[in-house]
Amino acid sequence: MHIRKPTPGKMLAALSLALGLAASAQAAEGFAGAQATREHYGAIFQIDAGGQGAIKKTLNNIENLLHDPRLKGKLTVELIANAQGFDVYVKNNGFEDKLKALQKQGVILAQCSNTLRELHVDRKDLYPFINVVPSGMGEITLRESQGWAYIHPTPPGESL
Amino acid sequence: MHIRKPTPGKMLAALSLALGLAASAQAAEGFAGAQATREHYGAIFQIDAGGQGAIKKTLNNIENLLHDPRLKGKLTVELIANAQGFDVYVKNNGFEDKLKALQKQGVILAQCSNTLRELHVDRKDLYPFINVVPSGMGEITLRESQGWAYIHPTPPGESL
Amino acid sequence: MHIRKPTPGKMLAALSLALGLAASAQAAEGFAGAQATREHYGAIFQIDAGGQGAIKKTLNNIENLLHDPRLKGKLTVELIANAQGFDVYVKNNGFEDKLKALQKQGVILAQCSNTLRELHVDRKDLYPFINVVPSGMGEITLRESQGWAYIHPTPPGESL
Repeated sequence: MHIRKPTPGKMLAALSLALGLAASAQAAEGFAGAQATREHYGAIFQIDAGGQGAIKKTLNNIENLLHDPRLKGKLTVELIANAQGFDVYVKNNGFEDKLKALQKQGVILAQCSNTLRELHVDRKDLYPFINVVPSGMGEITLRESQGWAYIHPTPPGESL
Repeated sequence: MHIRKPTPGKMLAALSLALGLAASAQAAEGFAGAQATREHYGAIFQIDAGGQGAIKKTLNNIENLLHDPRLKGKLTVELIANAQGFDVYVKNNGFEDKLKALQKQGVILAQCSNTLRELHVDRKDLYPFINVVPSGMGEITLRESQGWAYIHPTPPGESL
Repeated sequence: MHIRKPTPGKMLAALSLALGLAASAQAAEGFAGAQATREHYGAIFQIDAGGQGAIKKTLNNIENLLHDPRLKGKLTVELIANAQGFDVYVKNNGFEDKLKALQKQGVILAQCSNTLRELHVDRKDLYPFINVVPSGMGEITLRESQGWAYIHPTPPGESL
């Protein structure tokens, strides 16, 4: 007689879904949000558009995540900038204090090196306290593969 | 002699990739889409832009997902609104019937509470049948950590 | 006496976070990007906006991912087009050579069939070498469930 033992992968899939479905079952009567069950979480935010509105919205989104009571103290966040999103790290853009405050709370501030080359941006025009990584796309791919969430806010001022 | 046994995590990674690569191998001759191998799936849609176009597109995307023959009856979907995306839940916006129909099919309709406070939106201006969650960013992070897919449609009317 | 053995799921969560946190710990002194520890990775890019700018940016993002030294030779990439994003596959759009070059490198070129029906696009107006899948939303959901990263670039020209 052959009995198929569940593989770890299938067990994990079942477990994850069980968690998710338990939460969704609450929807009927007063669903108040998904529940945190892990010790640690990761989230990578992408910014690939320029302008004050996009920067303000993205940094505000990150702050709101850091303050979510479900995730307090359990969270590692990274912000990856590519394409026109490099604006977020340009010196004297008005966001130095905010960026430093986020970094103090553990937020990793990363810049795509391809963008610097392609858009002819000098590393020295960016804040010295940020980190350059090989590619923004690779950074996102690797973080998601580690189980981090990917969040890409829409720049404001469109679709009106 | 030391033999390193694969951890469940590594086995899962190998399994997931095997599934993915098997599908990609089909690309050469008539690839017709990734295959469903799990019992259940989750997907969280984000809407963070306002306007009829963004709402219509996002709800249409959700409907199309619910009707994908590969996932029929295996799917839990959540829609999280934040920033100007709260528009989707504003009373008399013309989408009440559509939202109720989605909810009947199990779609969780969630609103970020930070947005209500920051944009001075009264809970009573939103449909009573929606659910408020602590933060949209936390909701997305938690769902992705549970293995749910994240989908963030681009609002229409841009980049033209 | 009852001892709760960690489930594979919990062990995986712990492992993933350990990987992530190890990388984040590097942030303090010269963080140079997340590290690749797997044999294989997958990434699905979504394009759901039209216009030359959106196409150019998305294809450039894919090329940059393929060239990331951390992921070279370990990567399967898929591009899924839906809504106005079908533009990327319209014959004589100027991107035929680029698309063929990507496909040669293993990139799966997929088109949502709902879009063809809803926007009255004839399959024959698209390049013959692309693949039509049941739905773009289903494709993204399935890929993310297989552990693939989801990347959705912002179309350029907005939020300025």
